[in-house]
Amino acid sequence: MFIIGERINGMFTDIKKGIQSKDKKPVQERALQQVKAGASALDINVGPATADKESAMIWLVEAVREVSDAPLAIDTAKVEAMRGGLKAAGGKLIINSTKGDDQSLDTFLPLAKEFDASIIILCIDERGVPSNVEHRLEIAMKGLAKTMEYEIDIDKVIIDPIVLPVNVAQDQPAVVLQAIREIRQLSDPPPHIVVGLSNVGQKCTNTGLITRTFLTMCIANGMDMAIADALDKEQMNSMITAELIMNKNIYCASFLDAYHSQ
Amino acid sequence: MFIIGERINGMFTDIKKGIQSKDKKPVQERALQQVKAGASALDINVGPATADKESAMIWLVEAVREVSDAPLAIDTAKVEAMRGGLKAAGGKLIINSTKGDDQSLDTFLPLAKEFDASIIILCIDERGVPSNVEHRLEIAMKGLAKTMEYEIDIDKVIIDPIVLPVNVAQDQPAVVLQAIREIRQLSDPPPHIVVGLSNVGQKCTNTGLITRTFLTMCIANGMDMAIADALDKEQMNSMITAELIMNKNIYCASFLDAYHSQ
Repeated sequence: MFIIGERINGMFTDIKKGIQSKDKKPVQERALQQVKAGASALDINVGPATADKESAMIWLVEAVREVSDAPLAIDTAKVEAMRGGLKAAGGKLIINSTKGDDQSLDTFLPLAKEFDASIIILCIDERGVPSNVEHRLEIAMKGLAKTMEYEIDIDKVIIDPIVLPVNVAQDQPAVVLQAIREIRQLSDPPPHIVVGLSNVGQKCTNTGLITRTFLTMCIANGMDMAIADALDKEQMNSMITAELIMNKNIYCASFLDAYHSQ
Repeated sequence: MFIIGERINGMFTDIKKGIQSKDKKPVQERALQQVKAGASALDINVGPATADKESAMIWLVEAVREVSDAPLAIDTAKVEAMRGGLKAAGGKLIINSTKGDDQSLDTFLPLAKEFDASIIILCIDERGVPSNVEHRLEIAMKGLAKTMEYEIDIDKVIIDPIVLPVNVAQDQPAVVLQAIREIRQLSDPPPHIVVGLSNVGQKCTNTGLITRTFLTMCIANGMDMAIADALDKEQMNSMITAELIMNKNIYCASFLDAYHSQ
């Protein structure tokens, strides 16, 4: 399971203040904490911290790169901020993200090719967020076809079926579970599947329980990546255990500690 | 989700002593506790408490029936103890269980018909416990065909794909997840699917975590029944949350309490 740590995001107060006052400390601390907790990559998102997305993204990326060579997921919808972030980051890269409409795909897929980056394709198009499995499949299929046109290796393609909070659209998490399974069947080998995990339990009671339960159910359906809070230890333990059940980690009496000490 | 409470079983010391000393108190306490905790039915198993399975089963059933009219799952491989238990219990009944070989099916399916009982068919035959999905499907398919011969309604047919402890056969839980999904596709409407949930984490470290994680993953694959410890509140909460995600419970801020107070 490939966890993209969600915590370097200007929507969090400490990161927002760090960006605004050019204080690298909270950014670098969060980077190191997340990697230590098991994050395989770090999401980098300026969020609402400033209007100047491009220079803030470059500053954030450079701050992180001073302390970590983890893969970075450059998280912005602005193409110039994306290019600036990718260029500053180097190393292993993830474009987070492109929508699944033609215009977005034709904008971001060339960047993926240019920077040899993985790319997250959201199941969102000009009609918005799908309400059913079929519309998600249609967008995923179109996205996959486009990646082939741009000669992007399937191993670099990550589909995000888009999960909404269970208290907002209660039928959607189950639809997403089915979409995960069916999107994986669209190509052989399958694309990677990611979700923005924290969405599912947003502003719910029992957020942690809802989020980690959904995580294990997504893993049971074939999801192999998540943008998630790597610092939530209970959630990480649920993930490790779900992977044990999928026969992807080896059982030993200390299987949780063994994972955490990797 | 239909939980068959596993706790009235002579392998537990309190029940064993109750059976041996004809003390109904621990048996009746466990019956009431499990129903209160959310069990939809109660498993009744004499276990190793005595060699006289039939009269002990009848005594156990009568003790429970004095305090509860919950559906009972008569849990024995001995046909006379099964008949005695079914007869003493009345009400809604589950035969737990028959193996999937011809001789066992031809012994227990007529009892299911006679007592209008549901019946659990284990994916075990003369070759033993299957090691793969295909062998499980083969047994399930044969069992389903036999239930049709005996004119047993599909709603009374429950297939148990058999789960082994993850520390004994680590590839098996994932095989069981796939089997659950595929067995459900063998008929329309599908048979019910049950597992003996506590098996998966038996004698493991982090038993509770392994068990409730496997439970949510089984639910994601379509399992609708479990023989489980209804008194494990964390496990029940995981189950309730998984059903919420499957859109089978309605979300409200107090969704856990709402379920527990039903």
